[in-house]
Amino acid sequence: MTSSTFTYDQLFNFSQKVFLAMGCSNDDALLATKVLLSADARGIDSHGIARLSGYVRLWEAKRINSTPDVKIIHETPSTATVDGDSGLGLVVAPKAMQLAIEKARSAGTGWVSVQNSNHFGIAAYHSMMALEEDMIGIAMTNASPLVAPTFSVERLLGTNPICVAVPAGAQPAFVADMATTTAANGKLEILQRKNGVAPLGWIQDKNGAPSTDPHELKTGGALLPLGGDREHGSHKGYALGAIVDIFSAVLSGANYGPWVPPFPAYVSMPTGMPGKGIGHFFGAMRIDAFRPASEFKQHMDQWIERFRAAKTVEGFEKVLIPGDPEREMEGERMVSGIPLVDAVVEDLKSLSERFGVEFG
Amino acid sequence: MTSSTFTYDQLFNFSQKVFLAMGCSNDDALLATKVLLSADARGIDSHGIARLSGYVRLWEAKRINSTPDVKIIHETPSTATVDGDSGLGLVVAPKAMQLAIEKARSAGTGWVSVQNSNHFGIAAYHSMMALEEDMIGIAMTNASPLVAPTFSVERLLGTNPICVAVPAGAQPAFVADMATTTAANGKLEILQRKNGVAPLGWIQDKNGAPSTDPHELKTGGALLPLGGDREHGSHKGYALGAIVDIFSAVLSGANYGPWVPPFPAYVSMPTGMPGKGIGHFFGAMRIDAFRPASEFKQHMDQWIERFRAAKTVEGFEKVLIPGDPEREMEGERMVSGIPLVDAVVEDLKSLSERFGVEFG
Repeated sequence: MTSSTFTYDQLFNFSQKVFLAMGCSNDDALLATKVLLSADARGIDSHGIARLSGYVRLWEAKRINSTPDVKIIHETPSTATVDGDSGLGLVVAPKAMQLAIEKARSAGTGWVSVQNSNHFGIAAYHSMMALEEDMIGIAMTNASPLVAPTFSVERLLGTNPICVAVPAGAQPAFVADMATTTAANGKLEILQRKNGVAPLGWIQDKNGAPSTDPHELKTGGALLPLGGDREHGSHKGYALGAIVDIFSAVLSGANYGPWVPPFPAYVSMPTGMPGKGIGHFFGAMRIDAFRPASEFKQHMDQWIERFRAAKTVEGFEKVLIPGDPEREMEGERMVSGIPLVDAVVEDLKSLSERFGVEFG
Repeated sequence: MTSSTFTYDQLFNFSQKVFLAMGCSNDDALLATKVLLSADARGIDSHGIARLSGYVRLWEAKRINSTPDVKIIHETPSTATVDGDSGLGLVVAPKAMQLAIEKARSAGTGWVSVQNSNHFGIAAYHSMMALEEDMIGIAMTNASPLVAPTFSVERLLGTNPICVAVPAGAQPAFVADMATTTAANGKLEILQRKNGVAPLGWIQDKNGAPSTDPHELKTGGALLPLGGDREHGSHKGYALGAIVDIFSAVLSGANYGPWVPPFPAYVSMPTGMPGKGIGHFFGAMRIDAFRPASEFKQHMDQWIERFRAAKTVEGFEKVLIPGDPEREMEGERMVSGIPLVDAVVEDLKSLSERFGVEFG
């Protein structure tokens, strides 16, 4: 499998033009591109420009509205429920997070549940919006069902990620962005391309037996919740995925569990859908709603420094702080460029022809 | 290992008298007993009356203040920071959760971070206080360091549990109460008493090598974060435990990481402690701050019914909803009584003599 390398700006310009060609406003095309490309920059290749053609196909299937009227349908001083009007999650999500931040300014914290949205890129982009405001940011989303709860052969949950971003002082921010499964679907996709072997505990086959075949999901298998099996706490990963589903969708009026719409436009929609689109949940907590921000940051620096200085298991260089690998990757890729595997490059070339937009 | 069975009322009356003998007010003794015994009723034996003598020893060591002045030291419409004045966590925590509920009544949500507290029993008691108010309840606490972050041989985090309780309609509430480790310390204690073998992925030895010896923690070993090892997502369990630590202690001004005071009174305090006591974090979200509660509950019922009806892996009877096992245990134990192992009975008899309070 070979790849080619592009600059951030090359990919940014191309994405932006494709979103404009889909009919997005200038502001929305810019915002969607920033969110999408943040994944490529941070090394989350499964959630970046590799998904651009998927968004286009959802727009062609009329499941994504490129000119949404994103609106508040319910609110209190510290909360809101937002209807995303079937917009790109890449646009709806940062708008909802911005609202959480504004609520936090006046009420101390802000919490926004979103219905009628679509895939929102990486959770870290949204939660990290809180950092420059001296707030803790929280972002989560449900997703189409690929995960079997403990003891289930049915897939009832998405990989339902949670991200929590916490500002620090001299140290870089703490940013924990994680799927609530043992392994994110992106890691499985890498093994699928290589025809590799998945570690036990990542997936089960269609009967619920442990499997190491990364193609298992094509024949009724499932990803496993964080923990892998009951003895190793998979009921906790299942509960975490369930909490994300409930906060994102049961609270907002979106679809939940097995009824979450699939990302691939060619997969038919579930029957008996109980809500609208997919759901997200965002939170912003002002640090100085609890203690002075300068004090907090000083202690957060001490926390980070102590953990980073921990004595390591032999063979490992250092204990990582959540967010370290992605930040380092971003530093590298902004200088050396972003590698794309050939299949993605071909996909982008097709989009280039489809919209008459130059690529590369 | 044999055991004897007591009624809930027998254990309740005894505990209450011991707390009174420690100098707690009538109200506080009642509250502490309710919280403590909720663990025995729900089958979380490691957090119930088995810990009563531990609390007494902390009071004797002047680390627990039986007449605390629990007070708000900082607040906004949706937040507060509370100083527990070294009180029993069993008393401080429900008062802080009550404050979160009151904040939620006016602001939509309420969030309370607590410093200067002690062990608070089971997280589920506190988060479940929100249920009768038609709110979602969240409770978490940090704890003394038993857990090694991914790649660390040092123990830097507690088992740092998170509980989320969500009301439903006809169905019982969803209550997910989990340590952020592969296995709660209570499960390890059971294996220690039996000299049993721990599954790989629960603990590591003092050098960070995988181990199955449940006594490993006595010689410098550590519990492992949910996930067990890096390949199975232990960095996610580590991040979850870290989030609990930060919300509970860096936000409130309590001790964090390796500086959290130990539960056993005979273990000396860490040096260079950066805060006060241990920390907790509570949240309450009014359902109707997002959508009408009746609508939410109807969908929550549908969520629960769909998951409970999932096709199971052969050999397993049903897919559980978080909170099912504890609720069923409570139903049984309120009828058939609460079994205590002999070591705990002996411990309670000593307390009975110590305070001149009748036991059994």
